[in-house]
Amino acid sequence: MSRSHPSIHPVDLAAAPSTAAPGEENIYPPMRLRMKDIQGMPGTCMSLVLRAFQFLFAAISLSVMASTSDFPSVTAFRYLVAAVSLQTLWSLSLGIVDIYALLVKRCLRNSIIVALFTMGDGITSTLTFAAACASAGITVLISNDFNSCAQNHCTRFETATAMAFMSWFVVSPSFFLNFWSLASR
Amino acid sequence: MSRSHPSIHPVDLAAAPSTAAPGEENIYPPMRLRMKDIQGMPGTCMSLVLRAFQFLFAAISLSVMASTSDFPSVTAFRYLVAAVSLQTLWSLSLGIVDIYALLVKRCLRNSIIVALFTMGDGITSTLTFAAACASAGITVLISNDFNSCAQNHCTRFETATAMAFMSWFVVSPSFFLNFWSLASR
Repeated sequence: MSRSHPSIHPVDLAAAPSTAAPGEENIYPPMRLRMKDIQGMPGTCMSLVLRAFQFLFAAISLSVMASTSDFPSVTAFRYLVAAVSLQTLWSLSLGIVDIYALLVKRCLRNSIIVALFTMGDGITSTLTFAAACASAGITVLISNDFNSCAQNHCTRFETATAMAFMSWFVVSPSFFLNFWSLASR
Repeated sequence: MSRSHPSIHPVDLAAAPSTAAPGEENIYPPMRLRMKDIQGMPGTCMSLVLRAFQFLFAAISLSVMASTSDFPSVTAFRYLVAAVSLQTLWSLSLGIVDIYALLVKRCLRNSIIVALFTMGDGITSTLTFAAACASAGITVLISNDFNSCAQNHCTRFETATAMAFMSWFVVSPSFFLNFWSLASR
């Protein structure tokens, strides 16, 4: 991770201005303020929470859709499975990066990292949203236009579609916060 | 249009520093440079071209889909008609605003206007993209999974869907340029 940089640098204690009262030992280096550290940007607790929910919703959507026996007969449902699989992997990877950044207290404010995260979030969220819309179209066609829910797993299709929409809904803040931090530097 | 401001202000010619050679009449006020006037932002020629293409593609999609007799039987196709109608109206309105801004040489760099345009572009592009994805799901279901193009207007459905995708593709630069200019101020 040579692209990240430590948020706390070793400080020459003799040279640093003393903020401790006389007699008290000054063991902490002065706090450095990080600029524009908005919650939800990479390396923050909120970002980790967002990633966890993205992963959770995408994983539920994947497992519900994969549990139906007849999803491979419809192209849109096969595409949904592919899209939420990619979303699951992406959110898991970024969640691990966030945990690492929180544990070693490194801030991921490098513009190349943020550009990479923004592109990845943009691509995966667009794919998930497209898959969710296509599945929603098919689900509405089966349940409302054909009225053939008796022969089909309508409830499971609807659950999988709703979870894919939820996953997209939670990816969007990550994407917009990254895009904002990229544009506002 | 009290929210916009003229890019050329009336200047007190006696007070302005003379840039004309002696004997030549100084009839032009000094040029003012506009900051960050990226082509594609509101009030530029490129923005007008983008709006024209958005309107064109959305209008083609609307007319092709409306020309099929059986589109009201499928929910996703009805939704596509509604979404591209909204896109047509939005792009036409913003195109007229761009023409006005170009004619009277007003720059639309006000943050309230840009925020309004960004929200509008975001909403209409999301709706158009969702409708295009849902229609694409149905079209692929009819043509590939059911193989029933003989009874349906597959070509027209595909054309309308493709035009809706093209319209979304041309709205995206407008949205991202507006969002960028909003974030980078």
